[in-house]
Amino acid sequence: MKLTVIQMGVGVDKGKNLDVMRHFVRDAAQDGADIAILPEMFNCPYSSDYFTDFAEIAGGESYTALSQAASSSGIYIVGGSMPELDGDNVYNTSFVFDRSGREIARHKKVHLFDIDIKGRQRFMESETFAAGDDITVFDTEFGRMGLLICFDIRFPEICRLTALKGANVLFVPAAFGMITGPLHWELLFRLRAVDNQVFTVGASPARDENGVYVSYGNSIVADPWGKVLYRANAAEEMGFVELDLNEIKQVREQLPLINAMRNDIYSIEAI
Amino acid sequence: MKLTVIQMGVGVDKGKNLDVMRHFVRDAAQDGADIAILPEMFNCPYSSDYFTDFAEIAGGESYTALSQAASSSGIYIVGGSMPELDGDNVYNTSFVFDRSGREIARHKKVHLFDIDIKGRQRFMESETFAAGDDITVFDTEFGRMGLLICFDIRFPEICRLTALKGANVLFVPAAFGMITGPLHWELLFRLRAVDNQVFTVGASPARDENGVYVSYGNSIVADPWGKVLYRANAAEEMGFVELDLNEIKQVREQLPLINAMRNDIYSIEAI
Repeated sequence: MKLTVIQMGVGVDKGKNLDVMRHFVRDAAQDGADIAILPEMFNCPYSSDYFTDFAEIAGGESYTALSQAASSSGIYIVGGSMPELDGDNVYNTSFVFDRSGREIARHKKVHLFDIDIKGRQRFMESETFAAGDDITVFDTEFGRMGLLICFDIRFPEICRLTALKGANVLFVPAAFGMITGPLHWELLFRLRAVDNQVFTVGASPARDENGVYVSYGNSIVADPWGKVLYRANAAEEMGFVELDLNEIKQVREQLPLINAMRNDIYSIEAI
Repeated sequence: MKLTVIQMGVGVDKGKNLDVMRHFVRDAAQDGADIAILPEMFNCPYSSDYFTDFAEIAGGESYTALSQAASSSGIYIVGGSMPELDGDNVYNTSFVFDRSGREIARHKKVHLFDIDIKGRQRFMESETFAAGDDITVFDTEFGRMGLLICFDIRFPEICRLTALKGANVLFVPAAFGMITGPLHWELLFRLRAVDNQVFTVGASPARDENGVYVSYGNSIVADPWGKVLYRANAAEEMGFVELDLNEIKQVREQLPLINAMRNDIYSIEAI
């Protein structure tokens, strides 16, 4: 499975963001990608000042742009995320489109990002967004895939349950900042891969030191042993990685973890 | 809370192993330690060839040596682990003693270490040991502590449930090898600390390149941000670390993770 990770820059001009997306998706398809992943908030600055204004309903401009990019290029797109207006609520939502441009998954961010490190970083997604309630997977000819957004990956439970639903790869559009990025980004993507013996993919916006939000960048792909197959720098770039999903079976035979879970002494379940 | 991590060498002479333990515990107490932790299988080579022969009942020679070391030095001892004979079964068991030498916790390894990486590493604890069934905590004047053994730390569920029972520190006697040690040792101790916003402590036997089992060493202490407070080298050494357990509260206020768990969409429970 040929994967392209698109670490695109995101600015305050939505139309320009969509153009950048179209440009990268076209390049990804020309490179032979089967599936491309965009960053969290690929069409909108990652800031509470913009989420509500940029919010669109499913089927709106950005959604349609993603669908058309998928169908015209003939590849899967994990459409990062965007502020989605649904009823009276705004969600942080990721849409996935298949090669024909059909929506095949929709994940509303389940764990909203609230942080308050005095004097260093404060962000309260819960003041703007409503939270989703679903554990999300989608099927491709390569097998089943899982979909999370950013802060979701901090919770071992949702990662485990997504893997137990059969996901071979955890796709995670994300936008860590300059405090938690250096501390935890690589750690999280590597250990979630190791624990669940799956591939993990984190797609971040490129870092803009003068931007509304300074994201960490460092988009990453880890294999089921926790080895880093790809890691971006801070700037805008596109990473091309071939994933051999057969490795999952091999790793699980060599070091049985899922099978060694003690489901007789603890239970983990989706409600 | 002053902690000493004892990365002792372990050989085929049980009496000598006990002497080494006594020596290190005395030194730890002289340095002002409140609590000392020994490695997995501190009294026995980590090999299926030795476990059954070295097994003792609770109250036997090694157990008594630990209890006496605790009472004579006046510190807590997390007694690494030893092969414990209990009825017809042998367990990989950790005993904890308080400052008066009284046993205050007993953890039988819950997840047995089975690995088979063709041509590189094969180990099947389940061929020798029976598995424990309990999630284990113990109380001190510093607060509640959690106790796991080695492979247990690979399972996010038991780590989470131990933390949810109120553990401030996860004590983990362990003996990773030269394949999984470099790959996963630091990663596991750091991310379990981050996920659960607790301290983690891994105590390994010293590495003996000519030993029955070549352990990774690298005994480690990580704080709730996942920062490494102490990391040993390969050889025999003793590490002295002061833990400020108030940091747990601060971290959980700044980056609420436990409180942000979505217990409405998933459940994790001890059975």
